[in-house]
Amino acid sequence: MLDQEFQRIGRRLRDEGLVGGTFGNISVRDGNMLEITQTGCYLDEPGTPVRIAMIGNAPPQASSEYRVHRAVYLETPHRAIVHAHPVHAVAASILYDEIVPIDSEGSLLCPRIPVVEGAPGTAELARAVSEALRLRNLVLVRGHGTFAGGANLDEACLYTSLAEHACRVLLLVEAHRRG
Amino acid sequence: MLDQEFQRIGRRLRDEGLVGGTFGNISVRDGNMLEITQTGCYLDEPGTPVRIAMIGNAPPQASSEYRVHRAVYLETPHRAIVHAHPVHAVAASILYDEIVPIDSEGSLLCPRIPVVEGAPGTAELARAVSEALRLRNLVLVRGHGTFAGGANLDEACLYTSLAEHACRVLLLVEAHRRG
Amino acid sequence: MLDQEFQRIGRRLRDEGLVGGTFGNISVRDGNMLEITQTGCYLDEPGTPVRIAMIGNAPPQASSEYRVHRAVYLETPHRAIVHAHPVHAVAASILYDEIVPIDSEGSLLCPRIPVVEGAPGTAELARAVSEALRLRNLVLVRGHGTFAGGANLDEACLYTSLAEHACRVLLLVEAHRRG
Amino acid sequence: MLDQEFQRIGRRLRDEGLVGGTFGNISVRDGNMLEITQTGCYLDEPGTPVRIAMIGNAPPQASSEYRVHRAVYLETPHRAIVHAHPVHAVAASILYDEIVPIDSEGSLLCPRIPVVEGAPGTAELARAVSEALRLRNLVLVRGHGTFAGGANLDEACLYTSLAEHACRVLLLVEAHRRG
Repeated sequence: MLDQEFQRIGRRLRDEGLVGGTFGNISVRDGNMLEITQTGCYLDEPGTPVRIAMIGNAPPQASSEYRVHRAVYLETPHRAIVHAHPVHAVAASILYDEIVPIDSEGSLLCPRIPVVEGAPGTAELARAVSEALRLRNLVLVRGHGTFAGGANLDEACLYTSLAEHACRVLLLVEAHRRG
Repeated sequence: MLDQEFQRIGRRLRDEGLVGGTFGNISVRDGNMLEITQTGCYLDEPGTPVRIAMIGNAPPQASSEYRVHRAVYLETPHRAIVHAHPVHAVAASILYDEIVPIDSEGSLLCPRIPVVEGAPGTAELARAVSEALRLRNLVLVRGHGTFAGGANLDEACLYTSLAEHACRVLLLVEAHRRG
Repeated sequence: MLDQEFQRIGRRLRDEGLVGGTFGNISVRDGNMLEITQTGCYLDEPGTPVRIAMIGNAPPQASSEYRVHRAVYLETPHRAIVHAHPVHAVAASILYDEIVPIDSEGSLLCPRIPVVEGAPGTAELARAVSEALRLRNLVLVRGHGTFAGGANLDEACLYTSLAEHACRVLLLVEAHRRG
Repeated sequence: MLDQEFQRIGRRLRDEGLVGGTFGNISVRDGNMLEITQTGCYLDEPGTPVRIAMIGNAPPQASSEYRVHRAVYLETPHRAIVHAHPVHAVAASILYDEIVPIDSEGSLLCPRIPVVEGAPGTAELARAVSEALRLRNLVLVRGHGTFAGGANLDEACLYTSLAEHACRVLLLVEAHRRG
């Protein structure tokens, strides 16, 4: 049944163009365990999630970003995480050190979106993302994409969509003001 | 059956990329009542609409924008409303005080699209949107999105699509002329 | 069966984002008659085509662009026509008097795409489009969209896709060269 | 069964907007033979692949790009090839002689993407593409599109998606820095 939940969210991420190829990964917390998508899967056809503990090694079939997901669950109250690669959010993360949305949903729900750094899969990235998500739902990793946390997968998915919308509006408006 | 009508329109809005996540809401008038999407629903999977009266409080499961929809039905002849967040329309609403479409459909059907202000869900927004829709089918809310009214949901959906098309053409052409 | 052919092509046009709402129309020639989509239909759910003669009045349910389609069949060898509103092609038609594609498919198949003028549904537009399509498969109407003709609907659809691709590449490259 | 594999990959390419119309083609190596899509097919409805030898003439129903695919199999270890026309990759190939991705996936997996030249279907193009793919998975053909090779179709598809993502991020960031 969790398979179907992951697929339902994965299809929404794909249909909105927030992930491409086999990029991106999603997880939920279940007590002292977490369930995460397999490495190299298509999020819209994720197959069976991989169940891993909060400490120790993870099996090789788990997403290579499992360290980031684990750190977020250990350091924050979030119960679900979506990591995606939306193209305007990635571009904005290269251009800015912090995103200040100018659309009304972005302003209300994420008035400041921090941009952190760290190579994919590293402990440095895990620390930076988990710290940023302590008091909010959304962070950008420079050149890489979004990590969004929430009470459930729908909330994490919503913040991912919001991030791309806010960054796309920002880039369009900035381009015209500078033009 | 109205469930299916809402879903049919919701799917079109999603397929054209005019809404993302659980943003946007739609309604129809039914005499002295209105039927509106639930708060926080995906428009392509809207579930049962919420039936509310033209005065008094609305149940908490109704879209938080119900005040705007109600004001439009009270002040205008429209029978159906679509509220969406198309990205180019949102960007244009930040850049301009009024949109003057330069594509042929926009010029014919909406030669001037007003941009109004007001925070989501407020009485101020309800007043501004309902006044703007008295004599036309389409208005932009600055930084927020479109409200489109019509004789039925298909007409309101068409004006939403038209708004995004007109704003996207306008931004593309302006960018090149200024470039 | 022609219903299904129209729907198959209509779905491709929608899936590629070449039409939105109920805009656009398609037709095929059948001897001295033509079959055209209904006015106000969604091209992906077109219903039964309307059969009209090459001269005289058309029934009111026929697409309001039937005069253009008829003129093309009378003046050219094309057997099928697709009219769409692709956003980058519309923008390019406002910026340029003739499109000279710089991508390889555009250069090979449509080295010069003329831009003509005329209000939707008028005899002036019918003349301009039919003249332009005598010796080629594709023409843009300023601010309005594409008319593509071919031996069958797939060919007309291909030229529509090609037009949007060529114009999008052109606008992207021009923006960067001027930037 | 290979029909279904081609269709599965073709649908992904279409759903991500990496091909339009009947453009693009895909193949797999099978010993001394290769199986390639038919000329003029829609990649999401490819029908039966065409089986051709590594030397000699190919039947006329094979994709007109078969010479490029054959040269790649003869000169490289790749087992599968995807050729697509993603719009930002095409634009970038006109603007740059080599793409240096600035997003994290592009930097990791394709730190330099060469741009080669050659008219579609020619021996010159076959030489240039096969030489470029000897030591990597991805090459752009100026004004034309991507050729991606891999151990299987999923890998070739992933590199195609990666190319478009990397080029789109690059163009967005460059536009803002120059703006």
